[in-house]
Amino acid sequence: MNAYVADFAALDFSRRESRVETYIRQTTFDRPTLVIDVDHVEAQFHALKAGLGHARIHYAVKANPQREIIERLVELGSGFDAASRAEVELCLSLGARPENISFGNTVKKARDIEFAYHAGVTLFAADAEEELEKIAEFAPGAQIYIRLIVDASQADWPLSRKFGCGRDKTIELLDMARDLGLDPVGLSFHVGSQTKQAEMWIETLDQVATAWAAAKEAGHELSLLNIGGGFPAYYGEAIQRPTAYAARVMELIEQRFGHVAHVMAEPGRGLVAEAGAIAAEVLLVSKKSHNDLHRWVYLDIGKFSGLAETMDEAIRYQFLTPRDHEATGPCILAGPSCDSADVLYEKRPVELPLSLRSGDQIIIRNCGAYTSTYASVGFNGFPPLDVAVI
Amino acid sequence: MNAYVADFAALDFSRRESRVETYIRQTTFDRPTLVIDVDHVEAQFHALKAGLGHARIHYAVKANPQREIIERLVELGSGFDAASRAEVELCLSLGARPENISFGNTVKKARDIEFAYHAGVTLFAADAEEELEKIAEFAPGAQIYIRLIVDASQADWPLSRKFGCGRDKTIELLDMARDLGLDPVGLSFHVGSQTKQAEMWIETLDQVATAWAAAKEAGHELSLLNIGGGFPAYYGEAIQRPTAYAARVMELIEQRFGHVAHVMAEPGRGLVAEAGAIAAEVLLVSKKSHNDLHRWVYLDIGKFSGLAETMDEAIRYQFLTPRDHEATGPCILAGPSCDSADVLYEKRPVELPLSLRSGDQIIIRNCGAYTSTYASVGFNGFPPLDVAVI
Repeated sequence: MNAYVADFAALDFSRRESRVETYIRQTTFDRPTLVIDVDHVEAQFHALKAGLGHARIHYAVKANPQREIIERLVELGSGFDAASRAEVELCLSLGARPENISFGNTVKKARDIEFAYHAGVTLFAADAEEELEKIAEFAPGAQIYIRLIVDASQADWPLSRKFGCGRDKTIELLDMARDLGLDPVGLSFHVGSQTKQAEMWIETLDQVATAWAAAKEAGHELSLLNIGGGFPAYYGEAIQRPTAYAARVMELIEQRFGHVAHVMAEPGRGLVAEAGAIAAEVLLVSKKSHNDLHRWVYLDIGKFSGLAETMDEAIRYQFLTPRDHEATGPCILAGPSCDSADVLYEKRPVELPLSLRSGDQIIIRNCGAYTSTYASVGFNGFPPLDVAVI
Repeated sequence: MNAYVADFAALDFSRRESRVETYIRQTTFDRPTLVIDVDHVEAQFHALKAGLGHARIHYAVKANPQREIIERLVELGSGFDAASRAEVELCLSLGARPENISFGNTVKKARDIEFAYHAGVTLFAADAEEELEKIAEFAPGAQIYIRLIVDASQADWPLSRKFGCGRDKTIELLDMARDLGLDPVGLSFHVGSQTKQAEMWIETLDQVATAWAAAKEAGHELSLLNIGGGFPAYYGEAIQRPTAYAARVMELIEQRFGHVAHVMAEPGRGLVAEAGAIAAEVLLVSKKSHNDLHRWVYLDIGKFSGLAETMDEAIRYQFLTPRDHEATGPCILAGPSCDSADVLYEKRPVELPLSLRSGDQIIIRNCGAYTSTYASVGFNGFPPLDVAVI
C-alpha cells in the first residue's frame, strides 16, 4: 500500500471505505460514473428482512432500476413496487412473477393499467375516485389498496400532499372500490423518505391505525398494510442500522394494528443507496472576488446529471478526495452545466481540502439511490450518468 | 371546421393558435411529445437579427439542440454558443464552422478544451485563474472573454453568483490571460433569463460599462462584448416583441459603450421557446379531502420529464385544453412520477376547466426551450420527452 492509498484510507467519516469506494479510487473514469456493488444490495436485503419478519419486501424499483439489482432481488425472492408500465415490463423481463409486482403509482394511464392487468399484475394503488374507475374498467376485480395522506413527519425528504387521500375519504373510496367490483384489501402510506430512526414512525402509524380501525368498523375486511418506504441510508448523520430499525417498526405496527396478515414494505433508498458511490472530477476551484469568504468548487456532475436530490439541499452527500488528510475549508459546490440553478450546496457549504484543484478525483458516497435515472438525457450536452456494476 | 375545432380556436390567450398547437390538436400522441416548427425558429431569427444590427447571434445550443434547429441556423449563418464538448461536436457535425462556435461554459474539462481547440474553436469563456491556466495549456493563444457577475436583475429566472468574476478581479484576469499568451478580447455577462423588457437591461449594462471602461483604461484593447441571453418568450405576461426589444438593447449598448467592433448575443429561449409546444395528457383529476379548496390535476409530464423550469414555479407555462370554453377553477398541477417534489404549480394554482378529466389532451404552449434535454433518462421508468419536428 503506497502513501497515497494509506492517507486516503485513513480518512474515514464514521465508517470504513466501502468496496465501491476502493474500486473508484483505484480506477480512472472518463466521465461521472455510478459504481454499484450488488453483493451489498443482497446483504442489505437480508439485514432488512431479518428485522421485517413476516413483512414482505417490495423493492421500490424507481430508486435504481439497474438490471443487475433487479436480477439479484428476483433471485432473493423479493417483490417489486413499480411506478410505471416500463418498470412493470422491466421486472417481468428480468424474471419477476407478476403476482410479486404491485403497481404502486396512484396516478396511472388507463392503457398502462390495462397492460399490467393483462400481464398478470393483480395489486394496484389508488387514492381517488377517477383512478378507481379506471382500474375497475381496465383491471376488473383487481386488488386495491387505498393510499392515505399522513401529516408531515420528521423525514429528511418529507412528502407533500401529492399522494394519498384525506382520512375523511378513506371509507368512501373503499366502499366505492367494492361497489365497482374491485377487491379493496388494504391501506398504504409513506412516512417520508430518509426517516432516520424507527421512533419517528410513531405519529404516522397512530394516524394510519385510526383509519384502519375505522375501515374495519365500517365492515372492510382489511388484510394488507403497505407501509411504503422511508428506510434511511447513511449520509453523515446517525441512522439506526437496518435490522434494528425494521424490527422496531414492525413492533410499533404490531402494537397498533395487532397481527396483520400481509404487511408490505417498499424500501428503495434503504436497500440500494449505500451500495453505490459516484466517481466524479473537480473541474474548477475559484474565488469570485477578493473578499469572498468561500471558494467555489465545480464538479463534472450536478443537479441535472444525477444529483437531483440536492434540490433545496435536502440530501447532503458525503465526499472523499485524495487530499482529505490536508486542512479543509468551506466551499460552495456546483455542477458543470450553464444553469445557474445547478448549485448543489450553498446555504450550508461543504468542507473540502484547501488544496483541492481541477482534475482531482472526488468520490460521492452512498449514491446508489435516486441518481442514475434522475440524470437528464443530455442537458448542456452532458451524457447521462454512466453506471458500472462490480 | 367542426364545432369542437371552432370552440378550441376561439380560446385564445392574447394571441392566435400557433402551427404546432394546431398540429397537436389534430394528432393523437402515445406519450408526451414536444412538437417544433423550424420555420418559426427562422422567422424569430430574422426578427431578432433585424433589431440586433451588426451584433452577431450565437444560438445558445443548450436551449434546444434538436438537429433540425441547428441545421436551419447553420443555413441562416448563425453562430453557436456551446456549453460542452458534445455541443461543439453536434454543431460541427451539422455543418457549423468552428470559428462560428464559442465555448461559452466558464467551467470546462481540460481535455474538452483541448478537443475544441484542435477542432478549430478559437473563442473561450473564463471567469477564474485556474480556467485561464487550463485554456493557456490546452488552447494556447486562444481568444478569451472574461465573464462578469452582475447584480440581480428583474429577470424571471435570475442568475445566481455561479458564473462570472467580481468586478474587482476583471482587470487581473485580463492581465493574467495576456501574460499566459492568450488573447483577451472582451467581456461577457448575462442579464438573467427571461428578461421581459429591454429597459430592464439598463442597470446591468451600466455595471458592465464601468468594468469595460476600467479595462480599457488599464490598457486592454477590448473589441468583443458578449451580451449573453435573456431574450424573453411569451408565457402569458406581456413581453416586448423581438425586433423592438433587440433594437432597444443595442441602442442602450451604443449609448454606454460607443461603437463596439464585435457584439455577440446568445439567445436561446428567445429564439426557440415560441417555436414549440408539448402535447400532454391528463391522467387524473381528484380532490384529496371533502374540504379541499383546489382540485389536483395530474399530467403525464412533470418536473423530471421536461418541465424542469417549473422549479420554484419560476417559468409559468400556459395551457390549452379542448374544454377551454367551459367554466374554470383553480388547480394544483402535478407530474406523473412517484416523487412528491414533482408538483408543477401549487403556490399559485392554475385555472383549468372544471370539466377536465383523465384522458383529455392538454397543450403546453411555448415549450421549445429548456424542455427536451432537461428530461430525465428514465426516472420512474418514464421515457424522455419525445420530439417531433414539423
